[in-house]
Amino acid sequence: MLLGKVVGTLVATRKDEKLEGLKFLVLQRLDINGRPMDGYVVAADAVGAGLDEVVMYATGSSARQTVLTDRRPCDAVIMAIVDTWEVGGDVKYQKV
Amino acid sequence: MLLGKVVGTLVATRKDEKLEGLKFLVLQRLDINGRPMDGYVVAADAVGAGLDEVVMYATGSSARQTVLTDRRPCDAVIMAIVDTWEVGGDVKYQKV
Amino acid sequence: MLLGKVVGTLVATRKDEKLEGLKFLVLQRLDINGRPMDGYVVAADAVGAGLDEVVMYATGSSARQTVLTDRRPCDAVIMAIVDTWEVGGDVKYQKV
Amino acid sequence: MLLGKVVGTLVATRKDEKLEGLKFLVLQRLDINGRPMDGYVVAADAVGAGLDEVVMYATGSSARQTVLTDRRPCDAVIMAIVDTWEVGGDVKYQKV
Amino acid sequence: MLLGKVVGTLVATRKDEKLEGLKFLVLQRLDINGRPMDGYVVAADAVGAGLDEVVMYATGSSARQTVLTDRRPCDAVIMAIVDTWEVGGDVKYQKV
Repeated sequence: MLLGKVVGTLVATRKDEKLEGLKFLVLQRLDINGRPMDGYVVAADAVGAGLDEVVMYATGSSARQTVLTDRRPCDAVIMAIVDTWEVGGDVKYQKV
Repeated sequence: MLLGKVVGTLVATRKDEKLEGLKFLVLQRLDINGRPMDGYVVAADAVGAGLDEVVMYATGSSARQTVLTDRRPCDAVIMAIVDTWEVGGDVKYQKV
Repeated sequence: MLLGKVVGTLVATRKDEKLEGLKFLVLQRLDINGRPMDGYVVAADAVGAGLDEVVMYATGSSARQTVLTDRRPCDAVIMAIVDTWEVGGDVKYQKV
Repeated sequence: MLLGKVVGTLVATRKDEKLEGLKFLVLQRLDINGRPMDGYVVAADAVGAGLDEVVMYATGSSARQTVLTDRRPCDAVIMAIVDTWEVGGDVKYQKV
Repeated sequence: MLLGKVVGTLVATRKDEKLEGLKFLVLQRLDINGRPMDGYVVAADAVGAGLDEVVMYATGSSARQTVLTDRRPCDAVIMAIVDTWEVGGDVKYQKV
């Protein structure tokens, strides 16, 4: 999994019928130190994430393993809101 | 999912029989701000997208989860036409 | 899917038994304008492509969705021979 | 599979229900010589890896093939703790 | 599929139980001309490849389609030993 920050939202009314009810959030990718890095992903939200929250997302077929995304044409899902992570003993991120 | 702009079409008459009836569109990838970036993808169209429209596409096995692409040798599908997305409070794209 | 040009062939007699009968072609990747770009892939041929033909290929589990590649350890398949594609109104490639 | 060093841990209490009980570790990717390289991944731990250990991880749907990760929205799993690897006759890493 | 040269071996005694019996080889990636390029992969060996042999490997779920790797947490498999490949009429590699 990779880490991202919820920086935006996306609205699409005309879409495959299997996508009805999914909420799409725009994620800015974060590096191992929690700094923004190049690259983004639009992910379905399985956990009720909010703007500016740091999340963990899964891609590929694993993105369809939540109850919300099961059998849907969705290749990225937010499956956890991060509380904290540390690297080498340093806290790189702490949810406030 | 990632975002792309429909910039072209592709025709292939000689193809695997399972691909009959699919329409293939050429997508220019867009960055988080809606600007064209390097990279393209040819995607099957599951939503009736038109030229110049901004779309969201799914890749990998998730691309086979629409009714149109089910069990077909297709690894990218347009599964939504984007109305709008915003990042950091700024509208990055608005369908006209 | 991405686009490639058939530039070569590959022979392997010692291989997993499930691969018997597959033909492997070497593809040079093409960019959106039909120009060669870095990167290649060896793909199974599901459509009888020939040298110098421009083809569309699928990767990952989607590469196993043709009759020829079903349940085989193959992650790239040529699933169409391209007749033409155009971008922004310009014909970028036309099969002769 | 690729190689990584366990450099940290990640805690997420609000997550998809299918993730309950999984332990998430932060991996620094290693190159073929065992040196740290750009890139990280957060992986579920299927083998009881500890800090500073060098591990092998699998991604994509293969990450769901351990008993621990079966049918979970998880796209990276530590499936082995590396004892040693050698390249060109040189031992590049030896677990102590 | 991509091409690689077997340059090393990897030993891991503590691993997911489903990996018992698999042999892991370290592959140096090769470019279309058979020259070493950046990047490596550790792959399960389904064909009895030896050191210095040039092989073709499959990744992702396709890596689980050999008898040896079926349902195992393995995302790369050597599925063929290459005899020869040619590009543009030139033999780029010939097994001796």
